[in-house]
Amino acid sequence: MSIRIGIMGYGNLGRGVECAVKHNPDLELAAVFTRRDPETVKILTETAKVCHVDEAEKMKDEIDVLIICGGSATDLPVQTPKYAQWFNVVDSFDTHARIPEHFENVDKAAKESGHVGIISVGWDPGMFSLNRMYANAILTNGKDYTFWGKGVSQGHSDAIRRIDGVKDGKQYTIPVEAALESVRNGENPELTTRQKHTRECFVVAEEGADLARIEQEIKTMPNYFADYDTTVHFISEEELKRDHSGIPHGGFVIRTGSTGWDNENKHVIEYSLKLDSNPEFTSSVIVAYARAAYRMSQEGQKGCKTVFDVAPAYLSAMDGAELRKHLL
Amino acid sequence: MSIRIGIMGYGNLGRGVECAVKHNPDLELAAVFTRRDPETVKILTETAKVCHVDEAEKMKDEIDVLIICGGSATDLPVQTPKYAQWFNVVDSFDTHARIPEHFENVDKAAKESGHVGIISVGWDPGMFSLNRMYANAILTNGKDYTFWGKGVSQGHSDAIRRIDGVKDGKQYTIPVEAALESVRNGENPELTTRQKHTRECFVVAEEGADLARIEQEIKTMPNYFADYDTTVHFISEEELKRDHSGIPHGGFVIRTGSTGWDNENKHVIEYSLKLDSNPEFTSSVIVAYARAAYRMSQEGQKGCKTVFDVAPAYLSAMDGAELRKHLL
Repeated sequence: MSIRIGIMGYGNLGRGVECAVKHNPDLELAAVFTRRDPETVKILTETAKVCHVDEAEKMKDEIDVLIICGGSATDLPVQTPKYAQWFNVVDSFDTHARIPEHFENVDKAAKESGHVGIISVGWDPGMFSLNRMYANAILTNGKDYTFWGKGVSQGHSDAIRRIDGVKDGKQYTIPVEAALESVRNGENPELTTRQKHTRECFVVAEEGADLARIEQEIKTMPNYFADYDTTVHFISEEELKRDHSGIPHGGFVIRTGSTGWDNENKHVIEYSLKLDSNPEFTSSVIVAYARAAYRMSQEGQKGCKTVFDVAPAYLSAMDGAELRKHLL
Repeated sequence: MSIRIGIMGYGNLGRGVECAVKHNPDLELAAVFTRRDPETVKILTETAKVCHVDEAEKMKDEIDVLIICGGSATDLPVQTPKYAQWFNVVDSFDTHARIPEHFENVDKAAKESGHVGIISVGWDPGMFSLNRMYANAILTNGKDYTFWGKGVSQGHSDAIRRIDGVKDGKQYTIPVEAALESVRNGENPELTTRQKHTRECFVVAEEGADLARIEQEIKTMPNYFADYDTTVHFISEEELKRDHSGIPHGGFVIRTGSTGWDNENKHVIEYSLKLDSNPEFTSSVIVAYARAAYRMSQEGQKGCKTVFDVAPAYLSAMDGAELRKHLL
């Protein structure tokens, strides 16, 4: 029997989960829950229902794992603990500073109801965290570096679009190649914000807007751009649509460290991602952890987990013997 | 109280484990076991004992995890199941084809005695396997590539040294840059053995030996060199010692795959290692898994495990809350 998946929220991430479920034959999409009128939401999976969020509780026996696809700012802090009352849940909560608090809330709800909740799943937090953790456990004497990009930052793109006179815009975060090389060479550089990443903006201005003022406002915006070398390109709406409609992302997690009685030998561990679609990759990670949540729950485990707590084998559709034979 | 480690076998790997234990304050080296006369074996750790292998059984209450540092051909198939009778054990068994059989033997012994045995720990098998597995679970529709090097292959170096007229020699396995680039670009190439790696040999010949014959013998040696583009350099004993006495290694695990309803988006996951010392890095991985073996045993788990079965958090000296706060 397939593992029955529910999707809570049908935006980019929800659609990514739907696609990922299609690529995992042991999973099956049971329902998509939306805050909109279900009649107005068209999904791709013909065999799945579209339901209003208020109907979710009633469907607790028809769904094995509910994947919560809301935003980290306001949706997930409420939704993940709430739905852990009735479901095994997985989310991609990515506000790093608030993870401990979110963990406690989900843990409490999931333990009370006897479910498994896996939070902060995706690539950062998620696969990047895992690689940081493995590398730290191996090279105890070393230094961590994380670079992001080249990729679209939704938050920075939004910030551009809020500027007066801007019709649309897209921002790319780009790692500085020289910094990456220095890290890979084991030079252990201390890098400032400016030395690690540059920011490139593609902006569609309103007709007659003051381009110099817009550029200045972007480049001096505190937190978002002021600490970076930022490039601004003004382009047409057609160009933005044609050349910048994708949501690529990626990045690098590198740990350098030394071993030996007197730290005489150096090592570099590097993990990198190059993603055409940030939400679809995130969804693919989430779906593997949904399989894990189901299996852990079947074994009687309960409470909140993160990627650190999930034995890798739970993620794979293969069984232990196949894994050892083919992938070890 | 520290986790008390025993080392079985004091070659390159055993010495690496000794160094790695030094870099992990929650671990402590209790004893090194050797087949040699213990009086003749000098170790670096002043507080640890050197004992004959025959004394190991008697010391079962003084050691929490015994790390078996023998060879995969003849030592580990016997030693790991044997010592699992009395200890939690970790080994680096690396004969991929015989892993299923080794797993069964260790599993039987460890279950009967109530211990945990973690086998095939290191970087390949080990960290490379983990990365293959995670990447396969995420990108279910994709293709795997593993490249090794640049690094010293002990087996190929040994093969060179067995040739008549060769005094000493060292062989480097080198990944072909063009093949790596093609994979990274998502071209999904089908690569022959020759297209993936080249082999570079540094040979010290006996005085008066027929160099052309030696070179020919190397380049045509079946299994080891015949299927590769091989370069042979004749150098002096001093040069070999000066420039080639290290044991570097490393490599790349890459999975490329697609997501989306119609596989319209491509992704590249890459993991790579650049290691000054193959045995010291392997040892550092093993020591983290020794911590895991101890903790899993304390929780009442038993039987044989591989890296696939060990939740990442067990490897770290940090507790769950610290991990979530600092590394997630």
